[in-house]
Amino acid sequence: MGDPAGVGPELGVRLLSESSLLAHCRPIVFGDVAVMRAAGEATGIAWNEATQIVNQAADVGGITGPAIYDIGAIEPGAFSPGELSAAAGKAAYTYVEHSIEAVQSGRVDAVTTLPLNKEAMRMAGINFPGHTEIFASRTNTDDFCMMQYSEIITCTFVTVHVGYAEVPALLTRDRILQVIELTADALTRIRKRSPRIVVCGLNPHAGEHGLFGDGEEERAIIPAIEAAREQGINAVGPVPPDTAFIKSSLEANDAFVCMYHDQGHIPVKALAFDSAVNTTLGLPVIRTSVDHGTAFDIAWTGKARPDSLYSAVRLAIDLSREPASASH
Amino acid sequence: MGDPAGVGPELGVRLLSESSLLAHCRPIVFGDVAVMRAAGEATGIAWNEATQIVNQAADVGGITGPAIYDIGAIEPGAFSPGELSAAAGKAAYTYVEHSIEAVQSGRVDAVTTLPLNKEAMRMAGINFPGHTEIFASRTNTDDFCMMQYSEIITCTFVTVHVGYAEVPALLTRDRILQVIELTADALTRIRKRSPRIVVCGLNPHAGEHGLFGDGEEERAIIPAIEAAREQGINAVGPVPPDTAFIKSSLEANDAFVCMYHDQGHIPVKALAFDSAVNTTLGLPVIRTSVDHGTAFDIAWTGKARPDSLYSAVRLAIDLSREPASASH
Repeated sequence: MGDPAGVGPELGVRLLSESSLLAHCRPIVFGDVAVMRAAGEATGIAWNEATQIVNQAADVGGITGPAIYDIGAIEPGAFSPGELSAAAGKAAYTYVEHSIEAVQSGRVDAVTTLPLNKEAMRMAGINFPGHTEIFASRTNTDDFCMMQYSEIITCTFVTVHVGYAEVPALLTRDRILQVIELTADALTRIRKRSPRIVVCGLNPHAGEHGLFGDGEEERAIIPAIEAAREQGINAVGPVPPDTAFIKSSLEANDAFVCMYHDQGHIPVKALAFDSAVNTTLGLPVIRTSVDHGTAFDIAWTGKARPDSLYSAVRLAIDLSREPASASH
Repeated sequence: MGDPAGVGPELGVRLLSESSLLAHCRPIVFGDVAVMRAAGEATGIAWNEATQIVNQAADVGGITGPAIYDIGAIEPGAFSPGELSAAAGKAAYTYVEHSIEAVQSGRVDAVTTLPLNKEAMRMAGINFPGHTEIFASRTNTDDFCMMQYSEIITCTFVTVHVGYAEVPALLTRDRILQVIELTADALTRIRKRSPRIVVCGLNPHAGEHGLFGDGEEERAIIPAIEAAREQGINAVGPVPPDTAFIKSSLEANDAFVCMYHDQGHIPVKALAFDSAVNTTLGLPVIRTSVDHGTAFDIAWTGKARPDSLYSAVRLAIDLSREPASASH
């Protein structure tokens, strides 16, 4: 449900009625029924009367349609919509904790997260930069990577939230190979065939055969691509970053392995701003996320668009399917 | 005319008949008539019978409509279309030399360059990486910057053809301020009003108040923006690079000052692949360029699209106009 004061509750209410998704999954919102009822009333979004309510973790796996797991973390009177509060930050974290437990125990197949607010969590004494780190910590995972997925463009990231100047030292053959492998595995599940993976260079024109840069392509990127190809992964590159994302390339390829945050986030946001889904590859569980924040400025008004949530749920469904074959 | 063996000659033939441009300028192709005739015949592109031919530099300024300055640098038999040669590289360089002389002497208002091939030039013993450097060298200009212009997105560049790791050290307040000033001046001419200039950060999220990076935003970018604003330039930033190029931002702003090659080339190529024009700001003369290369694989077949050339000529026309007022 995300932060109760954000756009999460109303988007959760919408999800429970979304027939295009109910045909393919049984969504269960981990949150508070009273908060969602209040958000539905405040926004005028219709309530699906078929929604089942469960009160115990053990019952989560038994739902037969849209449902809410009523965790009881917060009352509607304990926070103000659109305002930061420790109480809402703590509740959002509680929902995530329960969802991780449910997906680890197999009672749900995948988790899609609605936005939490890291400042609200910090006010509650919970210091995680975001969902990704909570999932990684709780599942004891070190080797993961971010994927930004959309129908138009899909990027995975060798590095993410580090300064510009720190990137080159973090580009090792092993890390790049790991991200290529995680990308190939995820896209095999999504596309149900062997995907074609583009690996971007670091320097302008991918270094132009040593003309630009400190040989990062030769030192780390090319060896990683070669190792991936030896495993049977259809990886190509390093390609010049600026021509990677032109239309013909987007159409011919399934995903792009990016060396740093903005190399992939610039084209994802430019080309697929409303529809990109953030997911973490390499976790032992499936987790996707909306690509927006709590949007306190429009929370509880009904203005928040559910596109990103629906895309995130759709991706969670696709990733939950086993690949057609175990090989790439 | 660019490299005779590339797509330049046939695009030149098209230009001479393009009524949408002939209404606003008198184009004169600096090249060889015999080569252009041969390219026209090979491709079946109609020849504008009204084309004037001049044989002397002194006559260039006297044309009254579409024209060719017949420089006599190469014969059609001296090279093969689609193939690298020293003879074609030397001819392309000769045309550029003559065009710089013509624009410096005021016989033409602006130069638009068709593609040359740096490998062909190198075979002829001429070692320039591209047109930009030839123009800078011949006009004794040190303080220039690249602009990629299109109706959708316009970027200027603080650094261009340097390795990824070299960028931070090149980001000084003075250089960034210079690029902001050149950008504001160019956009004032093009838009005929005071433009709104976005300055991108270097780090993810523009550093997020010191969370990422080595303080490049605080050290260099913010002081440059403040100095520009003190001059009356409407510059904003530093903005997070990944949200700079979303639709609402593209619509609200006139140009984006980018810190490095791919920060701007990725969104320009993703969003305006066919229509972007490359120009050099800060030269004492106006020079625009097509945004593609010699395209030897399709040269002399008639397949080359003239969109980028026409956009480049249109921009040259716009830049040739004096701004409505001398102030920003």
